[in-house]
Amino acid sequence: MKLDTERLRDDIETNATFGEVATEEGRGRTVLTGSEADKRVREYFVTRLEDADLEVRYDAVGNIVGRWNPPGCDPDLAPIAFGSHLDSVPRGGIFDGPLGTYGALEGVRTMQETDVTLDRPIEVVSFTEEEGARFGVGTLGSSVASGELSTREALKLEDADGITLQERLDEIGFRGEGTIDVGKWDAWMELHIEQGTRLTDAGAAVGIVESITGITNCEVTVTGTADHAGATPMFERSDALAAGSEFVLTLERIAEEVATTHEAAVGTVGEGSIEPNVRNIIPERVRYQLDIRDVDQETMDTIVERCRSSLERIEHHRNVTTSLSRYRNTSPIAMSERCLSAAAAATEPNTESIRLYSAAMHDTANVGGVTDAGLLFAPSEDGVSHSPREWTDWEDCAIASGVLAGAVQSLASEAS
Amino acid sequence: MKLDTERLRDDIETNATFGEVATEEGRGRTVLTGSEADKRVREYFVTRLEDADLEVRYDAVGNIVGRWNPPGCDPDLAPIAFGSHLDSVPRGGIFDGPLGTYGALEGVRTMQETDVTLDRPIEVVSFTEEEGARFGVGTLGSSVASGELSTREALKLEDADGITLQERLDEIGFRGEGTIDVGKWDAWMELHIEQGTRLTDAGAAVGIVESITGITNCEVTVTGTADHAGATPMFERSDALAAGSEFVLTLERIAEEVATTHEAAVGTVGEGSIEPNVRNIIPERVRYQLDIRDVDQETMDTIVERCRSSLERIEHHRNVTTSLSRYRNTSPIAMSERCLSAAAAATEPNTESIRLYSAAMHDTANVGGVTDAGLLFAPSEDGVSHSPREWTDWEDCAIASGVLAGAVQSLASEAS
Repeated sequence: MKLDTERLRDDIETNATFGEVATEEGRGRTVLTGSEADKRVREYFVTRLEDADLEVRYDAVGNIVGRWNPPGCDPDLAPIAFGSHLDSVPRGGIFDGPLGTYGALEGVRTMQETDVTLDRPIEVVSFTEEEGARFGVGTLGSSVASGELSTREALKLEDADGITLQERLDEIGFRGEGTIDVGKWDAWMELHIEQGTRLTDAGAAVGIVESITGITNCEVTVTGTADHAGATPMFERSDALAAGSEFVLTLERIAEEVATTHEAAVGTVGEGSIEPNVRNIIPERVRYQLDIRDVDQETMDTIVERCRSSLERIEHHRNVTTSLSRYRNTSPIAMSERCLSAAAAATEPNTESIRLYSAAMHDTANVGGVTDAGLLFAPSEDGVSHSPREWTDWEDCAIASGVLAGAVQSLASEAS
Repeated sequence: MKLDTERLRDDIETNATFGEVATEEGRGRTVLTGSEADKRVREYFVTRLEDADLEVRYDAVGNIVGRWNPPGCDPDLAPIAFGSHLDSVPRGGIFDGPLGTYGALEGVRTMQETDVTLDRPIEVVSFTEEEGARFGVGTLGSSVASGELSTREALKLEDADGITLQERLDEIGFRGEGTIDVGKWDAWMELHIEQGTRLTDAGAAVGIVESITGITNCEVTVTGTADHAGATPMFERSDALAAGSEFVLTLERIAEEVATTHEAAVGTVGEGSIEPNVRNIIPERVRYQLDIRDVDQETMDTIVERCRSSLERIEHHRNVTTSLSRYRNTSPIAMSERCLSAAAAATEPNTESIRLYSAAMHDTANVGGVTDAGLLFAPSEDGVSHSPREWTDWEDCAIASGVLAGAVQSLASEAS
């Protein structure tokens, strides 16, 4: 479907003025849930939904939905929904989230202008707190909407100032009632920037995501003995940092080996701490947070098992104790065949597309657990995201949004 | 020299009641410079010096000196000084510092009781802030007294609450005037607990320290590229923590190799940080604080050079940048032959002694830079210090203090 590039650009650029961060390297924004910037972002979004005659509602955690009953539709049928999120990380980019949200709205406006008749209602959606940047829980709004997290628990979450999500939403006037139940959607589609370089490497304008990788998080601790860094001879030490460093390199090697046959497999230690962390004391304990992903649950399990074995080896030859606690596992999720086919069919013959996996979490992973879901990617320059340097050409925004809208239009015509 | 074990024990135990930390594993104390506990520690010390008819003075940074002019001495001759410190780390032990301070005082009392006549005056000393636990600069008092640090700079140092040393000393009434000039001492001796197990391993009651190891501190940074932990394939990463971990293991290997021929050589990474330190972001930068020691300056230089070479290798094969900044070098210092001989001569034939090096810093390292200095060790059980578990048998306290006092007495009789 051919969309209006300028109209889409106007919306994304206007949205980018809220919480704007102007830097030399690019234009960014900081839109934390419940902030003044978030209030203006939401008010503008509601205005634009209403400008297109959509009926707006929002639920108890501030998820916003604009409903369109197209000519010819049965308003009692389960709708096709599409959208994304409008919050950002601190000093984030202007496309991550807004592209999929305003891309969906632009799709509806284009359908309205073409006098299309459809079987099903259509909903344009923006989920609350996808980034988890203020309340620490990513894809929060879709977790509630898909039943993963209760509204009550979500509203009690506190930000760094000890203010709850409920209070923040009340402050900006966006705490509604009830829950948007995504399980009642016939299907869902999301467009997002890739946050990687597979599309630009392939010269493709659209990525059709086949699966979203699962994520396993583990906490590893290595405990040695705190001793005086001067008075303890090298051969009498039980140095937790040296032992921990051996583990960091072992996880890297394991993940590299697995990745030679499973390209999506990754293992990362992004976060760590040392105790007591004093220059002249041999470290007693290190604590690492692991992030392990793949499109295949079994591969993730294998990596965790190999980590356990390597820790046992390290215990033996270094006289330390270790622990590995696997505190989170989100299984990989496959996108629905229906949505994949609709996206493929909606891709113009002269538009290059590739099939790929998503290594980042998205609201679609939650929605996909309860109804048919699809995810599309638009190219991001140099793969940069979460930064003012994030960039997607306006033409690419429109092309990918056109595939999204085309897929949704065809899904909404399929009522059997 | 045979001292009164009970009188020494009484002083150390009374001193241990100030800032007392009673735990299941032992009796500790927290005596931070300028605290209420420190005030009581100092007041008791002054009382005990005065009880022994010593003339007490304290300087601008609170170093306390008790002067005794023994029968027969020329009060204009340069004195022999001995002592240690009375401050502690938080939850420190009751012997670290007080043993050497009250051991010296008990030595004076014993000399007084034996009607000895000596050529030189004798001074009993307690230096301020040896631990650096409140103002961040270890051996502070002796650094000022030996001219390493100016009184003005020292008094301006701030604690964690932003209160200066000057204010803290004023609060407890122990900011005197002028500076105790250790360069005017004929010689200095200190007794300290070993903080290691070489004495207990050898079954020795006294350690005669031949040299104090030097210390080099370096800051190493490794900079890679922050990237999404899910979306960045294993083979496209520039992971600062993985590269840094390789460095930690390399330093360990270098120090182990050097230590096979230089037993005092050690290299430690005790402190480190990760940026941005977020679970799902590949680390952009790690920063490590290195602590490298040996009794030989050249060995320390070699270890630093080998660290530089290893960082170059890591830069090449890991696509990171690195830096190494050597921001502190305290050269190893040899104890004076005069003091070593006096200590050896003062060791009773039935007292087992060994010669060794000190791997920990002591006030004696500063004093030894400007006058003849000697350092003795008493055994510490399991080598534990800076903990309520720190322990030295009272009999061992008295034996080592006796060697100290005997050495000082013979040094004070040598005026030529």
